[in-house]
Amino acid sequence: MTESSRPSNSAPIGVFDSGIGGLTVVSELRRALPLERILYVGDTARVPYGGKSAETVTRYSREISDLLIAEGAKMIVVACNTASALAVPSIAPNYLVPMVGVLEPGAAAAVKATRSGRIGVIGTRATIASEAYTKAIQRRDPELSVHAIACPLLVPLIEEGLLDDEITEAILRRYLMPMLAEGIDTLVLGCTHYPLLKGVIARICGPEVSLVDSAENCALAVKGLLDSDPATELSPRLDILLTDSSEGFLRIAEKSLDLTIDSLSVRRVGN
Amino acid sequence: MTESSRPSNSAPIGVFDSGIGGLTVVSELRRALPLERILYVGDTARVPYGGKSAETVTRYSREISDLLIAEGAKMIVVACNTASALAVPSIAPNYLVPMVGVLEPGAAAAVKATRSGRIGVIGTRATIASEAYTKAIQRRDPELSVHAIACPLLVPLIEEGLLDDEITEAILRRYLMPMLAEGIDTLVLGCTHYPLLKGVIARICGPEVSLVDSAENCALAVKGLLDSDPATELSPRLDILLTDSSEGFLRIAEKSLDLTIDSLSVRRVGN
Repeated sequence: MTESSRPSNSAPIGVFDSGIGGLTVVSELRRALPLERILYVGDTARVPYGGKSAETVTRYSREISDLLIAEGAKMIVVACNTASALAVPSIAPNYLVPMVGVLEPGAAAAVKATRSGRIGVIGTRATIASEAYTKAIQRRDPELSVHAIACPLLVPLIEEGLLDDEITEAILRRYLMPMLAEGIDTLVLGCTHYPLLKGVIARICGPEVSLVDSAENCALAVKGLLDSDPATELSPRLDILLTDSSEGFLRIAEKSLDLTIDSLSVRRVGN
Repeated sequence: MTESSRPSNSAPIGVFDSGIGGLTVVSELRRALPLERILYVGDTARVPYGGKSAETVTRYSREISDLLIAEGAKMIVVACNTASALAVPSIAPNYLVPMVGVLEPGAAAAVKATRSGRIGVIGTRATIASEAYTKAIQRRDPELSVHAIACPLLVPLIEEGLLDDEITEAILRRYLMPMLAEGIDTLVLGCTHYPLLKGVIARICGPEVSLVDSAENCALAVKGLLDSDPATELSPRLDILLTDSSEGFLRIAEKSLDLTIDSLSVRRVGN
């Protein structure tokens, strides 16, 4: 890549997810890199990705990444575990800018955190079926045992705003109890929606289990990449593009994540 | 339309939904019209429709209807309440074959069933926000009072197969108790997924509340349209096209609805 074709360091960091979950990554990016411009795309016309096939998730991820590149993004942050697991390895080589997913940073943090050698992973049906976390963890240390379980009801509960609700807690207990019985001491929140449930999950797991927040670890990885070339202008922005209008979106973003949104627009993507 | 351009009476009835819910309509069609060929399209690449905008649901409905016409359907059955509420009125005039939604037959049956004049309606967020049921009921009788509530968690619970589960029952109680307190004597199951929960819903509502199954009433409307020109060949078939591969689909279709599927294929539609 020639210097002239490279986006300037004041270009936005492009971030995408199928819906609102990726805003947890934006929230962590804003904390780690307060001066950066961020352009977030939520593919709300096709949300959720978590139950769809690798082929379809890869096609959607490519279309959204192309949009971010067309908007001048200097980096693509895939703020969706399903897309990170199913699409990033195959599409990242097609782009001249770095593509950072949430999966590898989360796996690395889990390996660092565990003492018992037993790690739990929760995620969407597609993420868990891909076994991407298990492989990424055992590539780092083949001795570690990984207990992964799909939790397909959590995203709908979160999208409905039932963040602190007895029904959400009952469903979480059902998902988590078998894993806790296996003696895990580390739990990877393998979906960018799940940090919104951190309080309830911590209450169920108890203080002896470390929660690995993939949003937080992804933001640290992005910061590491940008530290040599940070944005210097003093005009941080958060611009949001959605592929379908979404009423609940703003409410959750502003209420639960305390994000200030500079612009929000809707644009059709794909054909 | 000239006689020569008209699909023959042995052409398939085209049926579509965003996912598996519309199979409840197929099940009722099969019962009412045992000799007909049925071609079902499930838009699993973009499921669900229930939280999306009218514009997006209309675009998706048009694309799927075009596919059914290209496959020679003699009629289009919109086996999705969200699409029936948001898209049918605007797109039906574009097609030369009849387009039958689930909403009008359900509204008519509810008006006929109520004695107290208080009708409850449950549906997706988009269906309820459109007020289409309230309007369709009050167009028939402006004196009737309609209590409509969005139940966005039911579709994910059904798609996960939690049809007879204490969590599903707890969520249903929360949605239904306020309506029952208002004295409804008729409840419209305004989403084609919901007949799969009929048992639990009947248990919560008690015998004094009539449940209006939009799938059943839609099938009767289709039968009424075809009675003058029924299929006479003795080769009923059910062919299914999905827009994304979907593992859970067949399992629920065969187990809960006792449907025999003659072919299942995956085809990309739109974006």
